[in-house]
Amino acid sequence: MATLGLVEYADASPEVRAIYDEIMTARQTDWINNFWKALANDPPTLRRTWDSIRQIMVPGALDPLTKELVYLAVSATNQCAYCIASHTASARRQGMTDAMFAELMAVVGMANETNRLASGYQVKIDDRFVA
Amino acid sequence: MATLGLVEYADASPEVRAIYDEIMTARQTDWINNFWKALANDPPTLRRTWDSIRQIMVPGALDPLTKELVYLAVSATNQCAYCIASHTASARRQGMTDAMFAELMAVVGMANETNRLASGYQVKIDDRFVA
Amino acid sequence: MATLGLVEYADASPEVRAIYDEIMTARQTDWINNFWKALANDPPTLRRTWDSIRQIMVPGALDPLTKELVYLAVSATNQCAYCIASHTASARRQGMTDAMFAELMAVVGMANETNRLASGYQVKIDDRFVA
Amino acid sequence: MATLGLVEYADASPEVRAIYDEIMTARQTDWINNFWKALANDPPTLRRTWDSIRQIMVPGALDPLTKELVYLAVSATNQCAYCIASHTASARRQGMTDAMFAELMAVVGMANETNRLASGYQVKIDDRFVA
Amino acid sequence: MATLGLVEYADASPEVRAIYDEIMTARQTDWINNFWKALANDPPTLRRTWDSIRQIMVPGALDPLTKELVYLAVSATNQCAYCIASHTASARRQGMTDAMFAELMAVVGMANETNRLASGYQVKIDDRFVA
Amino acid sequence: MATLGLVEYADASPEVRAIYDEIMTARQTDWINNFWKALANDPPTLRRTWDSIRQIMVPGALDPLTKELVYLAVSATNQCAYCIASHTASARRQGMTDAMFAELMAVVGMANETNRLASGYQVKIDDRFVA
Repeated sequence: MATLGLVEYADASPEVRAIYDEIMTARQTDWINNFWKALANDPPTLRRTWDSIRQIMVPGALDPLTKELVYLAVSATNQCAYCIASHTASARRQGMTDAMFAELMAVVGMANETNRLASGYQVKIDDRFVA
Repeated sequence: MATLGLVEYADASPEVRAIYDEIMTARQTDWINNFWKALANDPPTLRRTWDSIRQIMVPGALDPLTKELVYLAVSATNQCAYCIASHTASARRQGMTDAMFAELMAVVGMANETNRLASGYQVKIDDRFVA
Repeated sequence: MATLGLVEYADASPEVRAIYDEIMTARQTDWINNFWKALANDPPTLRRTWDSIRQIMVPGALDPLTKELVYLAVSATNQCAYCIASHTASARRQGMTDAMFAELMAVVGMANETNRLASGYQVKIDDRFVA
Repeated sequence: MATLGLVEYADASPEVRAIYDEIMTARQTDWINNFWKALANDPPTLRRTWDSIRQIMVPGALDPLTKELVYLAVSATNQCAYCIASHTASARRQGMTDAMFAELMAVVGMANETNRLASGYQVKIDDRFVA
Repeated sequence: MATLGLVEYADASPEVRAIYDEIMTARQTDWINNFWKALANDPPTLRRTWDSIRQIMVPGALDPLTKELVYLAVSATNQCAYCIASHTASARRQGMTDAMFAELMAVVGMANETNRLASGYQVKIDDRFVA
Repeated sequence: MATLGLVEYADASPEVRAIYDEIMTARQTDWINNFWKALANDPPTLRRTWDSIRQIMVPGALDPLTKELVYLAVSATNQCAYCIASHTASARRQGMTDAMFAELMAVVGMANETNRLASGYQVKIDDRFVA
């Protein structure tokens, strides 16, 4: 079979269960989404990915909603269907309104457009941006 | 010659000068960066791009700093060197601190990583994200 | 209709059948996957693509498993769902274990992350890497 | 050293020289651009790449200018600086005017924008596009 | 819910209906595809996107079929499933034959291949392409 | 100023110096490349990135050379100039020969080509790849 199965809580090792528990506690929820159940096939990657996400997505100089908006912007740019679906849900949980989503997508679209205009026109970086 | 030249203010048509004036007024600055000078080779694209950016980047449901952070996140994801340089400068102008930049890059890096873990593991979208 | 149909063996021209036969012989299998059946709508592309793949994927300085791992790494980076599915299967056939897959994905994820950290931080290439 | 050198005509093997001759004849020019001089470090890749390009870029259902425009569009989308430079030159040779270039870039920018709006909004494919 | 619904004509505001009417008139058709129905959740983006597309895709220095081929080339490069489906249909409407499609895909594939050969071999841009 | 400076060893905090020492020890070298000096502007990202790389790139089910080849394949796909330069050097250190590099690039180019043929032709995933 080509794809690995999803590791359900009932079938998980104590090591994986501990991480699932951390995720559910941190997110104040009672379920685990498929991304983590897939990574659980490789506990070290599950551990490292969760630890990194937990460390990066906490409130800091940027608030959690801003971080989720950025996550969604990157996912839309990369055409990752799973990530768009899951991080739209995460951003909603952090307070993203319909109006915020619409403006976010407008910026993402615009940036993807001007990225190609800049490269296609072979625009040289201004000295002021380097100095 | 392969690349088009940059259209300087002194050499610009009245139509292009009017747009340059609008850009400088909107940004409260006295210079035009190379991106616009390159687009000025095609006035309709210059006009449309400036009008779209002006319309999209105004304060709305998202504030201008958040929009610039998203713009920079997309540009880093796409490896657009010009856009990274220019939008780092724009984000700075909107108040991005070193700490914000560092957290932004951490999120961008993480999202690009998990986007590939999700696709590589062929993770199916959870029903809850669809319903 | 927007998409072209799949060219089944029974309906294929002698030219296409000959290529299908080569593919099945080379892979020691008795079926043709959809990628080739779609390309068969354009026999010159089918011919050129198969010849290139056959030439490139043979054992050489790199062994076939390593080549399949690289193929899968590129496909995951590009979010090509079809290619991820088919090259996961190919890599399995060449001996990829679950542990190898897990390590491969960890490297792919990490590379995609640091690619954006390097561009976002605008890191200049070290002289030692150029000399 | 990290990068391979460029193989100049004077230093090339007879096999590589023969390909250089083919390229110069086909393009009615007396020089070889760096792309081919780099690939010449691996003669089989040089051979296969040149044969494929020659086969693909000939006049057919699409004329050579249209093919060069498409090549440039892909290169701008992928942010490949070398390819943008070289295929802008190729398209110029095939007759691309400034006005054509400007319209091409407008389409490329727009497509990159709407690609992300479509993915970000998670738009389902219409039945009519599938049937 | 993670995704926004599609705005059907019957439920649309007068502002959105007016744009739907413009789209159907311009395309000489009696239906609206899902892309627009999704964007209609944000009327300013719907308005701006439609106006830009209408302005960009008109006959000019490049004919509408060439523009649709470029649009499809970008969409295939970006792996945007929705856009590939919808712009294959648009290109068909503009006269794309099976033979044109096949040649287009061959160029797109080739460009994506050589884009990576150029970057991987770290090929320096020739002076002639810069001067 | 738009870009952050590079943190040299002499100017680094004890926390950063400790990481630099770990990197030099692990790589049996006496210098630090610019990537780490840039990340050092954000010690938590420097720490996390180094720990992840160290954990991921060790010998395991895949050997270090294979992992570096995959890293380089991803970097070439993403057009990350810095990463291509630095990971070409790393792969050389792990034993990549000219012949291996040439074959690697051939696979990377081919995968990028067929990724777009698969998406452009809208190829459906075979049941055998899913089951």
